[in-house]
Amino acid sequence: MWMPSQLPQLAKPLRDAGFKGDAKTLADVTAAPLSAVVRAGGGTGAFVSPDGLVLTNHHVAYGVIQYNSKPERNLIDDGFIAGDPAAELPANPDFRVLVTVGYDKVTDAVLKDAAGKTGRVYFDAVDRASKAIVADCEQEAGVRCSVANMYYGTDFYRIKQLELRDIRLVYAPPRAIGNYGDEIDNFMWPRHTGDFTLLRAYVGKDGKPAAYSPDNVPYRAPAHLSLAKDGPKADDYAMLAGYPGTTYRHRTAAEFDEQVNWTLPARVAVFDQLIDVIETAGRQDADAKTRYAAQLQSLKNNRKRAAGELEGLRRSDAVRVRAEDERGMLATNVAAKERADIDALAASIAGGSAMRERELLLSLFGSQSQLMRAAITLERLRVESAKPDAERESGYQARDHALIEGVLKQVQRRYAPEVEKALLTALLTRYQQLPDAQRLPGFDAAFGRTPAALKQALDALYASTKLGDEAERLSRFAAAREGRPMAADPLIDLAASLVPVQLALEQERKTRAGEQLRLRPAYMRALFAWRRQQGRALYPDANGTLRVSFGRVDGFSPRDGVQYTPVTTVAGIVEKNTGQVPFDAPKPLLDAIAKGNFAGTEDPVLKTQTVNFLTNLDTTGGNSGSPVLNARGELIGLNFDSNWESVSASWMFDPRYKRAVHVDMRYLRWLMGKVYPAPHLLKEMGDQ
Amino acid sequence: MWMPSQLPQLAKPLRDAGFKGDAKTLADVTAAPLSAVVRAGGGTGAFVSPDGLVLTNHHVAYGVIQYNSKPERNLIDDGFIAGDPAAELPANPDFRVLVTVGYDKVTDAVLKDAAGKTGRVYFDAVDRASKAIVADCEQEAGVRCSVANMYYGTDFYRIKQLELRDIRLVYAPPRAIGNYGDEIDNFMWPRHTGDFTLLRAYVGKDGKPAAYSPDNVPYRAPAHLSLAKDGPKADDYAMLAGYPGTTYRHRTAAEFDEQVNWTLPARVAVFDQLIDVIETAGRQDADAKTRYAAQLQSLKNNRKRAAGELEGLRRSDAVRVRAEDERGMLATNVAAKERADIDALAASIAGGSAMRERELLLSLFGSQSQLMRAAITLERLRVESAKPDAERESGYQARDHALIEGVLKQVQRRYAPEVEKALLTALLTRYQQLPDAQRLPGFDAAFGRTPAALKQALDALYASTKLGDEAERLSRFAAAREGRPMAADPLIDLAASLVPVQLALEQERKTRAGEQLRLRPAYMRALFAWRRQQGRALYPDANGTLRVSFGRVDGFSPRDGVQYTPVTTVAGIVEKNTGQVPFDAPKPLLDAIAKGNFAGTEDPVLKTQTVNFLTNLDTTGGNSGSPVLNARGELIGLNFDSNWESVSASWMFDPRYKRAVHVDMRYLRWLMGKVYPAPHLLKEMGDQ
Repeated sequence: MWMPSQLPQLAKPLRDAGFKGDAKTLADVTAAPLSAVVRAGGGTGAFVSPDGLVLTNHHVAYGVIQYNSKPERNLIDDGFIAGDPAAELPANPDFRVLVTVGYDKVTDAVLKDAAGKTGRVYFDAVDRASKAIVADCEQEAGVRCSVANMYYGTDFYRIKQLELRDIRLVYAPPRAIGNYGDEIDNFMWPRHTGDFTLLRAYVGKDGKPAAYSPDNVPYRAPAHLSLAKDGPKADDYAMLAGYPGTTYRHRTAAEFDEQVNWTLPARVAVFDQLIDVIETAGRQDADAKTRYAAQLQSLKNNRKRAAGELEGLRRSDAVRVRAEDERGMLATNVAAKERADIDALAASIAGGSAMRERELLLSLFGSQSQLMRAAITLERLRVESAKPDAERESGYQARDHALIEGVLKQVQRRYAPEVEKALLTALLTRYQQLPDAQRLPGFDAAFGRTPAALKQALDALYASTKLGDEAERLSRFAAAREGRPMAADPLIDLAASLVPVQLALEQERKTRAGEQLRLRPAYMRALFAWRRQQGRALYPDANGTLRVSFGRVDGFSPRDGVQYTPVTTVAGIVEKNTGQVPFDAPKPLLDAIAKGNFAGTEDPVLKTQTVNFLTNLDTTGGNSGSPVLNARGELIGLNFDSNWESVSASWMFDPRYKRAVHVDMRYLRWLMGKVYPAPHLLKEMGDQ
Repeated sequence: MWMPSQLPQLAKPLRDAGFKGDAKTLADVTAAPLSAVVRAGGGTGAFVSPDGLVLTNHHVAYGVIQYNSKPERNLIDDGFIAGDPAAELPANPDFRVLVTVGYDKVTDAVLKDAAGKTGRVYFDAVDRASKAIVADCEQEAGVRCSVANMYYGTDFYRIKQLELRDIRLVYAPPRAIGNYGDEIDNFMWPRHTGDFTLLRAYVGKDGKPAAYSPDNVPYRAPAHLSLAKDGPKADDYAMLAGYPGTTYRHRTAAEFDEQVNWTLPARVAVFDQLIDVIETAGRQDADAKTRYAAQLQSLKNNRKRAAGELEGLRRSDAVRVRAEDERGMLATNVAAKERADIDALAASIAGGSAMRERELLLSLFGSQSQLMRAAITLERLRVESAKPDAERESGYQARDHALIEGVLKQVQRRYAPEVEKALLTALLTRYQQLPDAQRLPGFDAAFGRTPAALKQALDALYASTKLGDEAERLSRFAAAREGRPMAADPLIDLAASLVPVQLALEQERKTRAGEQLRLRPAYMRALFAWRRQQGRALYPDANGTLRVSFGRVDGFSPRDGVQYTPVTTVAGIVEKNTGQVPFDAPKPLLDAIAKGNFAGTEDPVLKTQTVNFLTNLDTTGGNSGSPVLNARGELIGLNFDSNWESVSASWMFDPRYKRAVHVDMRYLRWLMGKVYPAPHLLKEMGDQ
């Protein structure tokens, strides 16, 4: 996950890996080819024609497809092909394509006022300076700016992006191609999914970003990628650019230890308990089962992710590896001042860890309840609404009111008192067992110190609260949003006693965050020096900014006796097909596979049509839709998934197991050429 | 699955496959090397020393190990090594090793009296002639004889086997090696199991078979196999001999169609329904859950097997392939007389199929109930016991009384009236919906024609029967075994009305079996001719007699994108190890793997210790414990499992998917050399 500016220093490894181009051309994110790589919705996209055609994932553009679907014209199920530009369909108005036009280091400006400060004051100084830089940058019309924090507070960059707001749907395969396998196949190589969609960016006639208008014209892309004529095969060079979200690879050894030996096991255990509570309730009450189906599914997904991450970190022996690495680093000649900061950082991290059981339970106390959360949200909204809008906590500003109202309304479909009480009983019983130092007087007063007291408190609250009634919630919302007192209710009264506790905890967290923002740079500098001594470069942990990864097409052995080959074929689509969602390949696809006309897109060795392929490229969430290029910089793939063994890669990149999953562009060319034909679009992309 | 006598004709294919020996030496089952291959318990074994040392599977010898285990000396968990012959432990008295000493064609004698007969009379004539041959053969002391039916009534062989009755336990690894992975890994390549055990056969001082006596001496084996010095690698020649149980590969196209398009789906559907009945009951009643745990597990296993077989037969397109093959056969010049028999066979099969729904439900009516089954068993026992013992139906003779008593006793632990009623309701509701032609007046009278009548009948029966009480069942058993009338009980009264129905159905089934025994040889002769025309040999379907298969060490691709490598290593044991049963590798094993001293048994390419390997050899149930030999006839493996994809191989051998799973003899040599050492036994086996 290299910053593009690092690549010229990596010219030799790039060349050794097989790259045929000039590493210097990859350094400037505002020039070709990287200026073709854009942020699209929540993922990545790339221009694939001079006229603003953007290739991204079906799942990244899913909201756009859904927005244009109607019962009588279901684009999700049927797919969509715009026969000409006039037929292209406008995206939902909040969908954005962002083109990076500026990328400048602003470390000095961001840290200027923070120097000499500590804790919360340091945090606020950085926050204030960053906001001022953004505000100044956004004076220019049509751009969105941000300040990116690299190497945990060591460097800051101002990123300026053209905000393209008129995006239109051009081509989408049917769901049963674009999302073949859905959740069942998600993370599970081998994959067989045509997870791609084409959009087009439009601008005003003046060439400037504009909201949708029928008069708008296609955006002239600053650069675009060309489709490769041939496809990937094992060991071929490959590279990828995109916007990975968050990684934790440069966290301290103590943080690795906590993640593996406490956080993930604790999450799995408490998720298991909550899953059991909901499943037990669901067996006795069909209505409750329906109401909690989404919450149950989400708990199961989170549980699976946590267990997978734990399994992966253990398999990679991550705690030991990171600890040895850190020991090596600290054994080098680290200056006393830096060493003091590193020690202080460790102390700050340990201070946070001392409260970890409580922190986990309190976060679930909010996220896993419906009525309790509604009451706390209302009270917090009332408190925040007493301040000027700009000073309110994010999430409680005027722009957030519609979202809060939606949450308050959906309680109706997601709440059953007996289940909520059972969930809170599970969490608060655990809370009651915490040592004194972790318990909070406000919570003890509200829920007592014994199971009997807890039961009595919850029974009394849920027997008498009126918040189960939507009108009661919404009338209080009307008052709270204006900072007015709300009509009395037992749950609102409780919230009034808990919100001050919540505010105090937030203050603590921000103070700690400020300290760590101040202290981590010393750790990162020591790590830099250590890596230099090892002859290795160091990328910053992912933070949603443009990064480049290079490597090769590569299968792997997930376990003894099993080898994953790096390229899948249409035979796998037929094997998986059951006719039932999500393995319900469309008849035109099955017919075309049976017919077997793959001329022009056939793999020369496998003698059939390929579908997906694997590389050892470094990705994480946010890399969805990243273009995959060959040694000549031509487009060979579209990133859309990872393998299950790499769920743990947010913490540790283990080259034995970390793989990325891509749509083979030959599959796209075959589908668009012969199955759901759009020859005009292939021609626009330069595929003759 | 060739009969050894066929192998000389297959000398060229054997040589082409890599066999270095003389095919003629494989033809005689009573001479070396095949006389080293024995029937052991329910599987196969092989002599591996001149002194009666028998190598077989841990799971084949499991009863022997269990029989010798005591709370204070748990041989299952700890394994066992006899330091010298005196320490060898006698097996359970019913464990047998059978050495084939005679193998003669007796077709004429078997069919002599059947000529010109049909139906039940044909069946009885064959049965009578076979029993006479066996009785005559068994005049000789110490031998057990049988008549084997080859090619569905075309040929008959008299098989004479020495019945070794004093078998002793010599060496067994701990369960966590011998059964590593248990049910979870069963059928699931890649495997990592040391599924082997060594026994020794003893005879009287006169060299004749004898029951256990401390004075007995080791049996001098007529031949024994030698351990290979090197091990298997991909594409190496391999061959295997053993006693496969039953296959259906030469059944007609109509029978294939019914198996895939009716029998297996119907079994899956009704198993699912019964599983749901038990699981629903278990959620409401913890006691019922415990009582039905074994029945539920068995239903789930049967369901899994049926679904796996169905999946495999569909994947292999078995119905179409068999139908095309049969069409080709019938298009050849089949004589009119033969053609008439083949048509009559088809009509007989169709006649049986007309009642298939009823047959399935009635078999489950018996097997899935406890108290109902007890009542019917008692009444049937009473009826049979009125006849002379030799004329009683097998299963109801004096020798079966202990078994029946055991079944009647275990009802106590496996019965809950509400669950039994729910299971019978599910089955009999299906029965009520059958067309008139399939329903039986006796059942209609007993259970009515409507759900309401059924409920009333079952409620009345289970409210008033006293058979739930063990003493009540056993007192009636005492009467029934002597053919005396039993004390009245509503369920016994019901059984008295159902058993005559059961007897009539049995008569029908035997009549049909007789017809098919008479008619199938015409079908088989046509198939022979067709295969000859194709230049192919034809083996008889498996029937528990000694067969030989040859092929090679071979991985496979279970699905697109996945390749199974053919040899697993100790790394997989560590990967799977959780410390919990069944993945609780013993510490000495884990320590030895970590230590990594594999000198002498290490794979020269993989540079580590191998565990199991795959071949494309043809096996089915009964081949457990079959020795696997290399091109020079040396022992390289011990068969113990198949892959999941070959569950359907009882009907169709698909070379793409059918694999057999073996213990690598290098793993045995390493375990016996360094982990649980028994150097004296390795020396006895010639491994220096």
